[in-house]
Amino acid sequence: MATKHLFLLPGDGIGPEAMAEVKKLISAMNEKIGSGFVTDEGLVGGCAYDAHGAAISDADMAKAMAADAVLFGAVGGPKWDAVPYEVRPEAGLLRLRKDMELFANLRPAICYPALAASSSLKQEVVEGLDILIVRELTGGVYFGEPKQIIDLGNGQKRGIDTQVYDTFEIERISGVAFELARTRKNHVTSMEKRNVMKSGVLWNEVVTQTHKARYADVKLDHMLADAGGMQLVRWPKQFDVIVTDNLFGDMLSDIAAMLTGSIGMLPSASLGAPDVKTKKRKALYEPVHGSAPDIAGKGIANPIAMIASFAMCLRYSFGMVAEADKLEAAIAAVLDDGLRTKDILSAGMTEVGTVEMGDAIIAKF
Amino acid sequence: MATKHLFLLPGDGIGPEAMAEVKKLISAMNEKIGSGFVTDEGLVGGCAYDAHGAAISDADMAKAMAADAVLFGAVGGPKWDAVPYEVRPEAGLLRLRKDMELFANLRPAICYPALAASSSLKQEVVEGLDILIVRELTGGVYFGEPKQIIDLGNGQKRGIDTQVYDTFEIERISGVAFELARTRKNHVTSMEKRNVMKSGVLWNEVVTQTHKARYADVKLDHMLADAGGMQLVRWPKQFDVIVTDNLFGDMLSDIAAMLTGSIGMLPSASLGAPDVKTKKRKALYEPVHGSAPDIAGKGIANPIAMIASFAMCLRYSFGMVAEADKLEAAIAAVLDDGLRTKDILSAGMTEVGTVEMGDAIIAKF
Ligand SMILES: CC(C)[C@H](C(=O)O)[C@@H](O)C(=O)O
Ligand SMILES: CC(C)[C@H](C(=O)O)[C@@H](O)C(=O)O
Repeated sequence: MATKHLFLLPGDGIGPEAMAEVKKLISAMNEKIGSGFVTDEGLVGGCAYDAHGAAISDADMAKAMAADAVLFGAVGGPKWDAVPYEVRPEAGLLRLRKDMELFANLRPAICYPALAASSSLKQEVVEGLDILIVRELTGGVYFGEPKQIIDLGNGQKRGIDTQVYDTFEIERISGVAFELARTRKNHVTSMEKRNVMKSGVLWNEVVTQTHKARYADVKLDHMLADAGGMQLVRWPKQFDVIVTDNLFGDMLSDIAAMLTGSIGMLPSASLGAPDVKTKKRKALYEPVHGSAPDIAGKGIANPIAMIASFAMCLRYSFGMVAEADKLEAAIAAVLDDGLRTKDILSAGMTEVGTVEMGDAIIAKF
Repeated sequence: MATKHLFLLPGDGIGPEAMAEVKKLISAMNEKIGSGFVTDEGLVGGCAYDAHGAAISDADMAKAMAADAVLFGAVGGPKWDAVPYEVRPEAGLLRLRKDMELFANLRPAICYPALAASSSLKQEVVEGLDILIVRELTGGVYFGEPKQIIDLGNGQKRGIDTQVYDTFEIERISGVAFELARTRKNHVTSMEKRNVMKSGVLWNEVVTQTHKARYADVKLDHMLADAGGMQLVRWPKQFDVIVTDNLFGDMLSDIAAMLTGSIGMLPSASLGAPDVKTKKRKALYEPVHGSAPDIAGKGIANPIAMIASFAMCLRYSFGMVAEADKLEAAIAAVLDDGLRTKDILSAGMTEVGTVEMGDAIIAKF
């Protein structure tokens, strides 16, 4: 197969440990099926700040832009709590999203049958859960200007953030949601706060128009984001695809992730628009979990979310659908065998570390 | 006892039905213990729009400002989905909050023992849950300017909302949270997105300073709002008091409400600053549930959230702590007796309507 350039950014905390398992997997795939992956590696987050005073260097940004896909671990930790806002670990991730124009963040929340019992929700509420949150990732309050703290004197400061959405941004993200819904249960729920926010009014209007103009075959519902959060907790199976803005997507996807019983399991894909000529999308794949500094370096982190993110990479960046299916099946099979990292351990199961979990999945692949 | 002026705004949907039960209760208290309540009534929401083209009239606003406390039902419904943004039903509620300067929204999420089984969460996760969300209510993205939709030409529009917080606003809301924590388990968790929002950076800074200067005896934690939402779903009992901004408070309090098994049970209080001379706070009490137009007029709505809101009114506006305790005990007793409205019905329980539920609570009081 053709050479495929992967740029790896393991980051901080448990990021490198989880990424190490994906590296083993990549080598195994190159050997076994000649998949032709070529990898390069860079720094992002706190480790990048330590190395060169920025959350990602321009050189690494350039490599990320040139790669066929970026695999991202996690960033942040108490060590960098006091670094200046502009170079905090998260700034690296936000720059990647913005400069690569990764406007579409896909966050599946799938409840693996073997884990249904470990959710804080009742088993019947989450068993078989399979929803997809499509979050807008390059707009809204994350990037709008002005974004600043003003000193008003008299001991008073003013903190300002700006939520901005343009028609084209809402159009393209809802287009992604409708397209994906067609490959699933054909149902999209759009969430905003149009009763309070003007950007919510526009969001609702543009999603409705996009639906009418191009996707009338898909079932579309609108829900206020607060009610949507409640409904996610009450009966999540009512949803198929949820499309929402950057900040609501941040909140709602974390809640959806928690429903499944373990955030250590969940992958995400962040995609750009298809290139006009090559049709290829820029893409970054990352686990939903964070850097978990409390368990970093102990060899107990769950590598599944990172491995499942690589499965999304196979599917969306390289069209290797059969391989992606096989990898996801390998994860489910290992869970069925009773193997568990500490975060998903329950009575009667076999506790394994990061490396053993990775090895077991690769062995099934 | 001295005359106490209550201004009632039943609103739309199930609002009037729920309010009717509180009116009976008020009459009963006046008769039985001479509590001296005098009530007046006005219009808010869709019904106010129908009557005079605004979501609340200036005359009713004046009455709300003058009353000792306002009792609010619910607003909105499909009938008013297409009315102009400025006069939509919610605008009445937002004007009340803003003009009365009700900056502190108290939302207890309590899981009644009799209802623990009806939550979508596992019984052990929610049984005995008692958390209090303190939400900032007059600032943030709800009221910041600019808030507009701009026509950019070429079929493009831009929707803009502005999140603004000043030091004094964060100081006073966190003061309320710390004070209340001292009457509870002495633990406050502050939630924001300081990793993405400048207003979050300021929020974190001011809460930390307020704590250090005046409330160092209270345990204080900080959590990112997305992680906070996850933790609410994972293990809500780790929290005592949560303090957060207007928009995160909207999302998080709805999620917390859903954990308890029924949003039809939960009250809220919205309080202003104490008057410099009289020490009295302006106040509005309202159920967390909405207008539920689908079940309005059927006599099946759960009046408990509205009655429990009146219990908060007794407690916070009139210092009638014994009466508030007694009313809350009456609600619990009726549930223990097996009485249930449709929304909280489970096997073996006795289904009752709105009026019967109200009567049963009054009889126990
Ligand atoms: C790390 C942080 C900046 C990020 C976000 O808020 O988007 C994270 O919470 C996420 O959801 O990917
Ligand atoms: C009705 C609406 C404007 C309101 C809000 O968003 O604050 C409601 O959701 C609430 O939580 O009281």
